[in-house]
Amino acid sequence: MSARGTFLTFEGIDGSGKSTQARLLAEHLRREGRDVVLTREPGGSDGAEEIRSLVLQGDPDRWSAETEILLFTAARRDHLERTIEPALAEGKVVICDRFADSTRLYQGLSRGDLRGLVDKLHSLMIGREPDLTLLIDMDPETGLSRAKGRQGAEERFEDFGLGLQLQIRAGFLGLAEEFADRFRVVDGNRDMDRVAQDVSEIVMTALR
Amino acid sequence: MSARGTFLTFEGIDGSGKSTQARLLAEHLRREGRDVVLTREPGGSDGAEEIRSLVLQGDPDRWSAETEILLFTAARRDHLERTIEPALAEGKVVICDRFADSTRLYQGLSRGDLRGLVDKLHSLMIGREPDLTLLIDMDPETGLSRAKGRQGAEERFEDFGLGLQLQIRAGFLGLAEEFADRFRVVDGNRDMDRVAQDVSEIVMTALR
Repeated sequence: MSARGTFLTFEGIDGSGKSTQARLLAEHLRREGRDVVLTREPGGSDGAEEIRSLVLQGDPDRWSAETEILLFTAARRDHLERTIEPALAEGKVVICDRFADSTRLYQGLSRGDLRGLVDKLHSLMIGREPDLTLLIDMDPETGLSRAKGRQGAEERFEDFGLGLQLQIRAGFLGLAEEFADRFRVVDGNRDMDRVAQDVSEIVMTALR
Repeated sequence: MSARGTFLTFEGIDGSGKSTQARLLAEHLRREGRDVVLTREPGGSDGAEEIRSLVLQGDPDRWSAETEILLFTAARRDHLERTIEPALAEGKVVICDRFADSTRLYQGLSRGDLRGLVDKLHSLMIGREPDLTLLIDMDPETGLSRAKGRQGAEERFEDFGLGLQLQIRAGFLGLAEEFADRFRVVDGNRDMDRVAQDVSEIVMTALR
């Protein structure tokens, strides 16, 4: 490892357990003496959290897919500048719950075929990809019932039903092939601790 | 004139009187029996006004130039979809106080040389240019003292001083050359009614 830190992201369908796994990994790495920043998207910096509220609250149709992509990209830019890049510059491990891959799928796919637009905007305004992306792969039906069990004010993206969950899961597996150099797929249909052990092993190997 | 409407924009430095001229033109055209939508940027639709508040309120350094450009582009996309395009489709005259040319200068110039980025983002996410742009050209010193006389909560962009006003004025005149087919320069250093008369003549000729 150089003095520069490591940028890890977790991706997966709603209810896949990726947020739990991100937290467990952060705890594990801290026990190993690593300096860890655990963050999430959309959000992760003061400005980005404000943009998150603007996007996720209110009528789901208040923004078009294109405007939504611009708002998420603005939030990501702020998050990158204020939280992620400074931590990486200090040599820390940054663990982020969702990043650009989620935008590629949720905005690129679920609201019309805008993947090309998402990619162009990403190249222009963000540029950075994670060093390693852990895809917590999960049976879409299980994931959906878990996600529904905890619905809150920000329920917009859980509202699309099983058809979309199936599509998103397939999309994530497609991204894992497209970006095979940085994606690792972990079977999330198992005991939480068993999944966490796999995640730790993959990450510790990468950090060596 | 076809069934499609006409998209007119006003540009100029702060204190140039362009907002007054936009209003006077709207009144004139309505007296002539035209169906007019008078709007402004940033803002001009419910969503865009919310984004405007997010950008213009609070600490001026809360957003980087790049994030600010993304937020303004998100606001513009919403404004275009919800206000401008529907009105043009109905054959109306849309008069907009500031549009993409302001972003080209204020964000492209004043906060680092980001004109290339602004243009790429505009091509990707907005695309549309006005049919006619009225540049109200004004002595920067006069403009600045007028703008300072009405400072309110959203004073961020009037805060840069005379050096920037001179630069922005030169920049607008540069854009008027670059986009000579749609720009008309009007001398704003005169009586308000005299300026309004010139504006009306230019627009009535264009609408014929």
